[in-house]
Amino acid sequence: MSSAWLLPEHIADVLPAEARRLEELRRRLLQTAAGYGFEQVMPPLIEHLESLLSGQGSPQDLRTFKLVDQLSGRMVGVRADATPQVARIDAHLLNREGVVRLCYCGPVLHARPASTQATREPLQLGAELYGHAGIEADLEIQELALDCLRTAGLDRLVIDLSDARVLRGVLAGASCDAARLQALAEALAAKDAPRVQALAAGLPDDVRRALQALPSLYGGDEVLERAAQLLPRHPQIQAALADLATLAAHLRRSQGAGLQVGFDLADVGGYGYYTGARFAVYRHGVADAVLRGGRYDEVGAVFGRNRPAVGFSTDLKTLAACLPAAPRRAAVRAPWGEQAALRSAIRALRDQGHVVVCSLPGHGHETEEFACDRELVAQGEAWVLRPCELA
Amino acid sequence: MSSAWLLPEHIADVLPAEARRLEELRRRLLQTAAGYGFEQVMPPLIEHLESLLSGQGSPQDLRTFKLVDQLSGRMVGVRADATPQVARIDAHLLNREGVVRLCYCGPVLHARPASTQATREPLQLGAELYGHAGIEADLEIQELALDCLRTAGLDRLVIDLSDARVLRGVLAGASCDAARLQALAEALAAKDAPRVQALAAGLPDDVRRALQALPSLYGGDEVLERAAQLLPRHPQIQAALADLATLAAHLRRSQGAGLQVGFDLADVGGYGYYTGARFAVYRHGVADAVLRGGRYDEVGAVFGRNRPAVGFSTDLKTLAACLPAAPRRAAVRAPWGEQAALRSAIRALRDQGHVVVCSLPGHGHETEEFACDRELVAQGEAWVLRPCELA
Repeated sequence: MSSAWLLPEHIADVLPAEARRLEELRRRLLQTAAGYGFEQVMPPLIEHLESLLSGQGSPQDLRTFKLVDQLSGRMVGVRADATPQVARIDAHLLNREGVVRLCYCGPVLHARPASTQATREPLQLGAELYGHAGIEADLEIQELALDCLRTAGLDRLVIDLSDARVLRGVLAGASCDAARLQALAEALAAKDAPRVQALAAGLPDDVRRALQALPSLYGGDEVLERAAQLLPRHPQIQAALADLATLAAHLRRSQGAGLQVGFDLADVGGYGYYTGARFAVYRHGVADAVLRGGRYDEVGAVFGRNRPAVGFSTDLKTLAACLPAAPRRAAVRAPWGEQAALRSAIRALRDQGHVVVCSLPGHGHETEEFACDRELVAQGEAWVLRPCELA
Repeated sequence: MSSAWLLPEHIADVLPAEARRLEELRRRLLQTAAGYGFEQVMPPLIEHLESLLSGQGSPQDLRTFKLVDQLSGRMVGVRADATPQVARIDAHLLNREGVVRLCYCGPVLHARPASTQATREPLQLGAELYGHAGIEADLEIQELALDCLRTAGLDRLVIDLSDARVLRGVLAGASCDAARLQALAEALAAKDAPRVQALAAGLPDDVRRALQALPSLYGGDEVLERAAQLLPRHPQIQAALADLATLAAHLRRSQGAGLQVGFDLADVGGYGYYTGARFAVYRHGVADAVLRGGRYDEVGAVFGRNRPAVGFSTDLKTLAACLPAAPRRAAVRAPWGEQAALRSAIRALRDQGHVVVCSLPGHGHETEEFACDRELVAQGEAWVLRPCELA
């Protein structure tokens, strides 16, 4: 049992310094979402597999931990992504007619890590806006997403816009099975041009040319012009390019110089449920996105209510890792004792929001995790605070 | 797929009204614990089975969801209780010499519900104090536990004290295998006198007499006197009764008339890891405890560090169910628009902590979850707040 403390790979304890940052991020980001009128929900950790994986592609299936529910004998999965759960809540439980805004924060579990460094237990926070098909919903979600990242303390942000309709338009009419589509999406997301070329073999010439153009369609505003020239004149593609131009213009106007806006039309990987404009936010010079979102109008269909939907999600553990270490919390050191005056002095300090750490009998000042800069000492009948040396 | 929305039994979504209460409880109770110097940790949802179940009795094993980790092929469990995880963190990761105070809040999962009405996904919040064998640690944990319940808004509380050493002392020297011990503990906790009698068959006379006395040993101060007469003069029992008297006296002195203090020496069920004084807090007139805690000095042994430990845990979903429904949150209704003046008026209100819900084009005032008592309207160049009728 000498290794009883060894955790599974890509699974880790969160120790006090990081937990403090995560809890603070949780509180502030949920508060930010509440300020926009997003109501918090808490979907369960487990659901029946067919409910959890509805409307999802196979990568989500493969990353879901599965187990047998001994109460029913049915297969259940531990959620790997809360987005479909929240869509289920909108579609079925709330069943409101108009616009619904929901947010959530909780752990999800991945059977396989997303990358060699990734945790298998992200702390997912997200927001979803249902019931509005217009671009105003996309704008509100992007604004909230950027507001959350700023609230978290991240700056020098870069947003890359993309649209799931681009690939759909490119492949329209071509015969491409789900496995090839998945492989193509991954090769495009990785900008792996030779692999895209290999996977495009056998497709019509114009489709192949468009697929081979996609990996180069990233950068600034010139991307939209080049896309209009290089991609087929499909209505889905034209709608996508028009929406992307609108979104970029709005972002520049509302966010100012603090945000760099770009396009990455090959970013079609990831969750299979996106149906419209998508976005990914990066820190300047860092390759992995800190937040992703977009429109996915069909995810509620399996629950009987095919509502327009747009949302984003982020992993608070990833965000916390971008932030500087939090300073130790200041605290008051107090002796242990049963005297009423001491106890009420301690209570009064705690009620005022101070941290008061009692030294238990026989122990020294073992409060290394707190910056005890004051101590409670008896002065005649009264107990008073006086400064003390930091441990 | 018409039942795709059906959740597994004893599993439920938490909708906005309840989620708001849970999030508020989480925030306030963690803040209360922080005021005592308890540092938050976040142990993972899954661990290797032998680590998760170390030092635990079989009921904990049976209530743990198990699955195979495809990265290692090893069995892992979804935590059914965070207490052993936090003990592992103290024992191994922090490895501090002196007193360590840790708290946590997160979902746990039960393969079987604890009762016919119980959720299988409690939101467990708890605090643990390591490294002090003296009764001062028990006192601090009990004080914090009661403080948390008051912070949550619960009143008319009843605390029942008990001690794991009583049953150990009663059975000392008698031959009693683990299965019978478990059955005895359950029968005693249920005060099922005939079953206790049946299970005691074959044990020495004095042990049988003591076991049969236990179910009657609950009530007020007279319980300790009766226990001293009815139970064997074993050192463990004498230490337990002395500690219980000290704890009761302290609670009466520090908590005043707002707390009813009693004893229930047959309350030996539940977690197998308790080793000393235990307590359960009830609401007056309600049978199920809202919070349980006690001393469990041996839970870290398997991790190589047998530290004194005392702690408590509670389920925030249970606490929330005791509280009155929260009123709808007041909010400001605003039109949607790109005008800079409107957008900065909205931002200023949100920065001040107001909820501002934008009505997206084509939708009415669908903000039934918010009490929109003010609206943002244009007045010449400016945007001003004016009262409006509640939806």
